[in-house]
Amino acid sequence: MKHTIYFNGDVGIKDTFTIAGPKEGEGPLANYFHNVLRDDILGQKSHEKAEILMMKSAIKNILNRTDYTTEDIDCVFAGDLLDEITSSNFAMREFPIPFIGLFNACATFCSALIMGAIMITGGYAKRVICATSSHFGTVERQYRYPLELGAQRTPLNQWTVTGAGCTLLEGGEDHRVKLTAATIGKVVDYGVTDSNDMGAAMTPAAMDTWITHFTETGRKPSYYDAIYTGDLGHAGSRLLKKLMLKEGYDLEGIYDDCGALIFNREAQKVGQGGSGTGCSNLVFNSYIYSQMMSGRLKRVLFVPTGALLSRITPLQGESIPGIAHAVALEVK
Amino acid sequence: MKHTIYFNGDVGIKDTFTIAGPKEGEGPLANYFHNVLRDDILGQKSHEKAEILMMKSAIKNILNRTDYTTEDIDCVFAGDLLDEITSSNFAMREFPIPFIGLFNACATFCSALIMGAIMITGGYAKRVICATSSHFGTVERQYRYPLELGAQRTPLNQWTVTGAGCTLLEGGEDHRVKLTAATIGKVVDYGVTDSNDMGAAMTPAAMDTWITHFTETGRKPSYYDAIYTGDLGHAGSRLLKKLMLKEGYDLEGIYDDCGALIFNREAQKVGQGGSGTGCSNLVFNSYIYSQMMSGRLKRVLFVPTGALLSRITPLQGESIPGIAHAVALEVK
Repeated sequence: MKHTIYFNGDVGIKDTFTIAGPKEGEGPLANYFHNVLRDDILGQKSHEKAEILMMKSAIKNILNRTDYTTEDIDCVFAGDLLDEITSSNFAMREFPIPFIGLFNACATFCSALIMGAIMITGGYAKRVICATSSHFGTVERQYRYPLELGAQRTPLNQWTVTGAGCTLLEGGEDHRVKLTAATIGKVVDYGVTDSNDMGAAMTPAAMDTWITHFTETGRKPSYYDAIYTGDLGHAGSRLLKKLMLKEGYDLEGIYDDCGALIFNREAQKVGQGGSGTGCSNLVFNSYIYSQMMSGRLKRVLFVPTGALLSRITPLQGESIPGIAHAVALEVK
Repeated sequence: MKHTIYFNGDVGIKDTFTIAGPKEGEGPLANYFHNVLRDDILGQKSHEKAEILMMKSAIKNILNRTDYTTEDIDCVFAGDLLDEITSSNFAMREFPIPFIGLFNACATFCSALIMGAIMITGGYAKRVICATSSHFGTVERQYRYPLELGAQRTPLNQWTVTGAGCTLLEGGEDHRVKLTAATIGKVVDYGVTDSNDMGAAMTPAAMDTWITHFTETGRKPSYYDAIYTGDLGHAGSRLLKKLMLKEGYDLEGIYDDCGALIFNREAQKVGQGGSGTGCSNLVFNSYIYSQMMSGRLKRVLFVPTGALLSRITPLQGESIPGIAHAVALEVK
């Protein structure tokens, strides 16, 4: 068994689309998002319905931008943080496209990219859409407290990103940004029990996947122009850098975290930064992809991280396992 | 876009393993299960922890039976009905194997078979494990009422199967039972809102996937020795047969439903029959697989069905979308 696979055919990004919430639209990446919402309820009766609408809209928009119809898409891989991936299921009612639902918490977007690339290079699809979403209101209610309660936030908390995004993967040689390899993570649990400190819970999984990736590929971090984790936040990514240095990997100047990038931490009062299934998706499909398209980044290792808790598991005394998947992208 | 794919390489079943709950162990398929539990709590403090233990045990047992170690397995595809697929995540803490979490409700086991077969025939894995579980106690508490409440059951209710099972898929020519094709379903919603009538909610999805499969492959139902849905139950499968007959497909004598097969309906007081992510898995990995191994069935179309609701969606006035995936298996 190896965790790392090399894609044995051409698979690249045809296009991306992102819808960001109003708070995300006031952050440092505002200009990179394709669409910024004025409010996060979208005229719906609940945040849950608003999240469904966001994901639906993201998929509609990527079809519009690429001039493809639902007939041109062979499969959608989608997931989100809501129980039973509600947003994905209900968004997919609108699209008569084969659908595989995924759940690896906030690492789900990377599972979608990997499964999509496997399906395309395996000869089973020409085009797939990889979509995820998250919403501050739905996640707070589900995992913590309803917003109406006004619960005080803890120092290590992170702010769930409101947004939905998708990547249209396509076979063939015509794409500037290609997926070249992936490292599929395993579940890692170091016994962290504080469900307000997702960064610490996910850091061991990120480390495990990184070290596996570097060991199996024989690459050093410097092989990549940039390495991104999904949503460790400021505290988690500081911890990760320190622990990786102990293991002999110097990440200074190469590494950043999507959760740290998406908000202006001080001005926006977001605790340790962004999180959620939408977080790494939004940063990847806007900022990172545009950096690769412009040639400023040529080789990127993208490593979304997921904390595998439910509302119930901490109440039953369980710790918080984590998982991280990595995908390597190169400008060709 | 076509929903149907034909596996372009050899992928077959190396072995299967099933753990059934005590009630399932009193049903008509008792002798086919590999392991029947004496109680459904397994010495744990909660049904949730018992379900995690069942899934862990199913994976351990398939490794023992096949003499493979975790090193020999390239990926595990797993999912279950608990929020955030808790049982799969926590079971996978014990296995240092690449893990992709899936969720298509009770159709999840079929997603796992399809993704596993794609990964193997795509050249990315030699062996994968496909695992799902469900538990009567955890599902009743999550979707309906805690068992302690003693709520009265409605006429169209189904009984969630307690059990976990897995299939070890392997590349190469040495396997008697091979996966030859699959039809990946789309989300179908006919507006059914009764969350106690899962059969009616999922029937349109099963129909859609069947008709797509027969149309795209040019096959008639009689191409197969047997066709199984996952958990439509008695009422749902009667409805499906009627509706399919209207469309010109006569299924008499060919079709059965795993949820109808797993219990003795009258004697066991299970409403319309079994349901749950463990239902189609248990019937497939015990009864159906053994019928194929013995040569009594040579061509099988296996079509697990899923109802894509959460605890919250009916309360927010949503209907219940369904999905069904199909996989074709042949004895070679």
